[in-house]
Formats: sequence, C-alpha cells, structure tokens
Amino acid sequence: LCLLGFGNVNRTLVRLLQEKTSELQEREIGWRITGIASRSLGWIAHAEGLDHSALLEGKVSVGSTSAPPQNVREWLRAAQADVLFEATSLSVRDGQPAIDHIRAALESGAHAITANKGPIVHAYAELSALADSKGARFLFESTVMDGAPIFSMFRDSLPAVHLRGFRGILNSTTNVILSGMEDGLSFDESLKKAQEVGVAETDPTHDIEGWDAAVKVAALVTVLMEEKIALDAIQREGIRELSGEAVRAARSSGNPYKLVCRAQRDENGIHASVRPEQVPLSDPLAWITGTSNIVCFETDMFPGLAITEINPGLDATAYGMLADFIRTVSN
Amino acid sequence: LCLLGFGNVNRTLVRLLQEKTSELQEREIGWRITGIASRSLGWIAHAEGLDHSALLEGKVSVGSTSAPPQNVREWLRAAQADVLFEATSLSVRDGQPAIDHIRAALESGAHAITANKGPIVHAYAELSALADSKGARFLFESTVMDGAPIFSMFRDSLPAVHLRGFRGILNSTTNVILSGMEDGLSFDESLKKAQEVGVAETDPTHDIEGWDAAVKVAALVTVLMEEKIALDAIQREGIRELSGEAVRAARSSGNPYKLVCRAQRDENGIHASVRPEQVPLSDPLAWITGTSNIVCFETDMFPGLAITEINPGLDATAYGMLADFIRTVSN
Repeated sequence: LCLLGFGNVNRTLVRLLQEKTSELQEREIGWRITGIASRSLGWIAHAEGLDHSALLEGKVSVGSTSAPPQNVREWLRAAQADVLFEATSLSVRDGQPAIDHIRAALESGAHAITANKGPIVHAYAELSALADSKGARFLFESTVMDGAPIFSMFRDSLPAVHLRGFRGILNSTTNVILSGMEDGLSFDESLKKAQEVGVAETDPTHDIEGWDAAVKVAALVTVLMEEKIALDAIQREGIRELSGEAVRAARSSGNPYKLVCRAQRDENGIHASVRPEQVPLSDPLAWITGTSNIVCFETDMFPGLAITEINPGLDATAYGMLADFIRTVSN
Repeated sequence: LCLLGFGNVNRTLVRLLQEKTSELQEREIGWRITGIASRSLGWIAHAEGLDHSALLEGKVSVGSTSAPPQNVREWLRAAQADVLFEATSLSVRDGQPAIDHIRAALESGAHAITANKGPIVHAYAELSALADSKGARFLFESTVMDGAPIFSMFRDSLPAVHLRGFRGILNSTTNVILSGMEDGLSFDESLKKAQEVGVAETDPTHDIEGWDAAVKVAALVTVLMEEKIALDAIQREGIRELSGEAVRAARSSGNPYKLVCRAQRDENGIHASVRPEQVPLSDPLAWITGTSNIVCFETDMFPGLAITEINPGLDATAYGMLADFIRTVSN
C-alpha cells in the first residue's frame, strides 16, 4: 500500500487498517505499507514494508535506500505499489496534482483510491477508462458524505436503477455555521466558532461560497447520472449574504435556511444548483443540523430514497477508503 | 425463472423484467419464465418458456404437458429452474410453506430469492448454509423496506462494519393509521380508511399488534447483527390502545407517537422492541409519515447512518427481487 498525503485521513486509515487486521485476514487480505509521501516527508519507499506503528508516532525510518525516489512514478515503482491511497489537498480548479498521481498509479497497474473530489470532476472518464484498460480499479467513496456508501450503493446495490435527480445538504461547514446563527450568533461569530472547533478552515471561502458543495454535486452528477458537468454550469450562491436575523426569522417561521444542493434531469439535460433555500419543517433537510449530511435521490424505482449521515465521526472518511480497498482486492 | 405466488409482487416483477430487458441484455443477462405456480393456478411448468405477456393478461397456456407436476420439486425439475422467486403469503409462526419451497430450490441447485420474511426469521442459518453448499444464492432484499437496499448495502457496501443497533419505522400500515389519527380520525376510522385505500388488510391484526414490525426487526437482527432472535424475545406492543386524542396531543406537544422498532447490542446480548414511543421533532423518525419508512443504524464506523424510503411506489418490492436476480447471476 502507498499513501500519498499523510494528514488526518491517511493517518486514520493506517489506524483502521491496524484495528481491522483480523477481519481483513478473515477475508484473506494481507497488507503492508511500502510507500508514504507528503510535502514534508518527501517520497519514501520501502518495498519490504514500513513500520506502521512508528509511522503513526511520526517516526519514519527509511532504511538504507541508496537512491530515494524523485517523483510519483519512481516512488510507486520503488514501493512496488499494489494500491495507492490518494489524500492530498483538493485543487477545485483543475484537480491537480491528484490526477497525475492517480494516472501514474493506474498506468503502473496499481489500484487507485482517492478521497479527493478534483479527479472525479475533472478526469473521471479518462481515469475510469484507464483503470478498465489496466484491469485496475479507481474508487472514490470518501469524496462525498465522508465515506457513507453512496457510490457503492448505486454501483453494487441498485442495479438497473435510473437516477433522475437529487437534493441534499453536503457541506458540513456551512451547515454548522447556519446552526450557530440559528442559536443567536452573527455570521462572523458563527464562522469564528466553527474555525475554533476545527470545522471551518482558516480560509473558509471554499466552503462558504458553495464551492465544496458544488464539487460534490458535480461528482454525483458525473458518476451517478453519467453526465459530465462543468463546475461553472452549476448555479452557485454561498451563505455569506445571510444575516443572523434572517436565519433566525426563517427558523422561527418554520422554514429554516439550508445550503441546498440540487440536480435534476429533464428533457434539456441536467440542471444543478447550490444555494441557500428555505425548506419546510416537513422536509427531512430541515432537521439536518451541525455536521450531519443528507442526500435524497429520486430514481425510477424509488421516488425518494434518502441517505442520512448523522454526526459523522472522525473515522468515516478513512473508513470509506478502507471499504474501497476491501472492494478492490475482494473482486 | 420460476415464480411461486402470482400476486402483486411477482406480477410487477414480470413487468419490470419486460421493461428492463435491454438493460439486462447489456449485462449479458437473458431470461425466460419456465414455471409459475399459485393456489389458483396449480403447478405450471414449461421449460421452453411461457408467454410472459399473456401471463400478465391472465392467460396461462400450459402447452401439452402430459403429466403436470404435483409438488414444488416436480415443478422445479419440469421447469428446469435456475432461479426461484418465492412470493407466497407469510406465515409468521413457522415460515412455511416458503421454507420448504426455498429448500427445494436450493437443493436442486437453483438460486432462491424471496420477498417473504418468514424464512429469514425461522430458517436463515439453515438456508444460507444450504445455498453455500450448493454454490447457489439465497437473497431476500424485499423482505424489509420494500426492496430499498438494506441487506445488500451491509453485505456489499459496508465491509468490516459492525452494527451495534438500529431504530426505525418499518410498518407502513400503523404509520398510515397514526398519520390519520393525527389528522383528526379515531383509531377505528383511521383503520377503516387505510383498509379502503388498500394499505391495511381486511384482518389488520398482523400489522396493528406489531407482528409485521417484529418480524422485520428479527430479520435485521438475524442477518445484520448475526444473532438468531426468537419473535417472543422481542418486546412487542401494538397501537390499538392509543386514542385519537392521545395521538393528537402528542403531536401538538412536539413529541408525536410512532411505532418504533429498536434493537441494541450490549454486554448481555441483543435487546429488541416494537412499541409506540413519543419521539421529539428533532428526531428524523418524527417526520416519517404515511407509507414512508426509515431505519437509523448505529455502527462502529458511523454513529448514525439512516436510510429513508419516502412514499415508496408499487414497484419497490418487485425491484428488490429484480436487483437480487441481477446480483445472483452477475456474480
């Protein structure tokens, strides 16, 4: 296994691999980590296996590699990678450098598993075709709803179903901020509080202006509705213009504001949007607070099939990658 | 394909098979119906294939079978069954005759797909082991939540996840009756209305006293928590004792009554119940009205993962059997 990026997601993944080792053995799945790379660590490869407990303690012993790898291809080769776990930071605009990492892994015959939405939005068709041609798999369950089984449910559990559209709440940061505003805070106060508890990033633009939600909409449309959609084709409006008063008045009136993601297919194609909408209390979206997420699918067989992730834990995103790994090597 | 029972579910299944024929062909799945049986039709087998369009119009032409089959085994043999779709009426107490039908199919090497909860509750271990020993599959997605992908999600999309417990609303009839009572009807009036629209049966005891919900709880516990549980071990209380006034007062106070299904694992084993409970409006269960269903799972990786089926259509149960069929022959 090769880990690219060694932040929260891949660290948690290593811990889950350790915790679930006996269950993996029952499935006849063995593993060792032979490569790890990040901006601060550089490209570290050791085909006999790195000490994963030491890795989690921040101790990386490289062994006696004579010529350390200089780029992703050399690294994958030196590590004899079977599976790449790609968890570098997202570039919304072009999906790089994650696309190059995944392409390199697939070309080498390794499976590629990513928590990074960029490659789905910008290179899904190319990377899927490349994976097929190499007999490898390209999986990405953790890109939407923290590893809750959205993509795998449609692929494995809903055969021959047609998705007509969906509605949902897919960005936690804005939902936490809106919840804080309902509890009496101003937008700025609620944002600051969300930053203090680690939900909002230092530069929260990506979430607040609806980019993160739009990228998730694009990923769902691309994969589940099988239509490529440009980010610019998604109507996008963030929550910055909402005042605390407006948010509280909306909740009191029984029609709270939510940052609602939508996509719908009609005879002219797919229409998609991300914007604050007031939803009635009878709508399940109205009750999704804090870091919870929901998506309601409209399909030809089920007029409304909703998946809700309530108070996701820290493990959920890494679990999605672990589940992709199990799927990949079980088939 | 052999259809046992030819009521709504298997009739709709035949229509779906027709509608989805081209998609099945894309998956290299061909089909023909070689056997059909019900109390009124008897055992009809025709290995070259029956005319399914005629079947839907109620015209069953048997061909020139010299000696018609006299029982399920003769019927499966004469029909050269590859897959049995079992959709006879449920016997809660012993799961018969469905268990015998499924056993006969599996012993003959055919796959068995059922919409009938009895065999899960009374013979899951035996039938699963039999299927394994024959290289056949025993699938039952349609037994809980009308074919929404519950069992397949855990089996295929949530590998290595441990289910600690669940809560849900799994019986539509009682939920429709409670919704009617909230709208001003008495229990008897609401029951009568539910019978008029075809949601409640002429003898509604099975639903109203919580048996249907308890059987579904038992099925979920047996399969997903991997513990056999007797129906009598599930605390069970129906909705017959609730007055319209009590139901309306509970809704007005913001804590509506729902017939809540629960199961939870602790150090002493699994505790399960079906009973009317008042749930707060912040609970997603509070907003499940009419024929909608919900189940919230607590797992080691997801503290709360909920599946909601909103206003299920008539096709959902038959779709669950179709999806089981596709899974069965795709693997």
